[in-house]
Amino acid sequence: MSEPSLSFFFFFIFFLFPAISDSSKCSIKGLPLVRNISELPQNDYGRGGLSHITIAGSVLHGMNEVEVWLQTFSPGSRTPIHRHSCEEVFVVLRGSGTLYLASSSHEKFPGKPQEYSIFSNSTFQIPVNDAHQVWNTNEDEDLQVLVIISRPPVKVFIYDSWFMPHTAAKLKFPYYWDEECLQPPPKDEL
Amino acid sequence: MSEPSLSFFFFFIFFLFPAISDSSKCSIKGLPLVRNISELPQNDYGRGGLSHITIAGSVLHGMNEVEVWLQTFSPGSRTPIHRHSCEEVFVVLRGSGTLYLASSSHEKFPGKPQEYSIFSNSTFQIPVNDAHQVWNTNEDEDLQVLVIISRPPVKVFIYDSWFMPHTAAKLKFPYYWDEECLQPPPKDEL
Repeated sequence: MSEPSLSFFFFFIFFLFPAISDSSKCSIKGLPLVRNISELPQNDYGRGGLSHITIAGSVLHGMNEVEVWLQTFSPGSRTPIHRHSCEEVFVVLRGSGTLYLASSSHEKFPGKPQEYSIFSNSTFQIPVNDAHQVWNTNEDEDLQVLVIISRPPVKVFIYDSWFMPHTAAKLKFPYYWDEECLQPPPKDEL
Repeated sequence: MSEPSLSFFFFFIFFLFPAISDSSKCSIKGLPLVRNISELPQNDYGRGGLSHITIAGSVLHGMNEVEVWLQTFSPGSRTPIHRHSCEEVFVVLRGSGTLYLASSSHEKFPGKPQEYSIFSNSTFQIPVNDAHQVWNTNEDEDLQVLVIISRPPVKVFIYDSWFMPHTAAKLKFPYYWDEECLQPPPKDEL
């Protein structure tokens, strides 16, 4: 009598339960109003040294006007050089590093960026459309930041270098953490 | 010879320097891009037990779409019962407390709110226009939260009780921390 029950149990665990999880991963339904951040999904989304958690997201949690992320960069890891046409605020929770910011978006390419030291308990905001990069330049410690953006979900233009023309920067949309749940709009067939 | 110099020094310290500080308090000019949060102005704005810091603000820092606050509530202190027509996300950095939330904004008054326990490393978002109140119900510890709102500067409707009609809630604009630097629009004289 016990073996069939056990089989059913494993069937449930391995086949039914992941199916339930997958379908709920992209839905706000059933999420508690107060969420434990340490229980939220985290992933590096293919970027070594990154841990990204969407604390309050457009795609995942129904936000329309703001989005909040918790990101941890291991020593040496960094964002790509990128820009976006939304507001962005960083709050550094721990660690230190360097912000590279090119405020010459009126030129044809970002150009050599200015460097700013960022440190635990500091804050900074990125001017809309300015190319920038956040880099954990501290060899000994993780850099952890809260990131707040407007106009979610984020549309990111990525540069290979500071001297790549703005027009050549590559649009990444949906961005890595929105890819699974946000389907890109269908292409115009005409 | 030394006395006149000393007088001038005190004149500079007591009269000129505060004047310089006052004029710069409401201007983004001269602020460093990376700001040390522990050096930003903090105040209780007449609300006992509160420490409010505007980390990135509309009035103070030129934000148009999002605003970020750091608030600390001493044991027993709380926000008023209030609503606002913007999105709002909380990230609890330390302490614990209670969120009271009335999701009956379609009724004539908020009504008895639901209670949610909030705790360190938790997050929650307030549905647009829902009346709510955050209360440090922990007798032993401060409650510290990061607050993110959209559509700054915030326009707050304050209720005396959960059974006050929505139409009787009192608009507070500019809100306490925006009062000094944001002048309300002139009244229509006609």
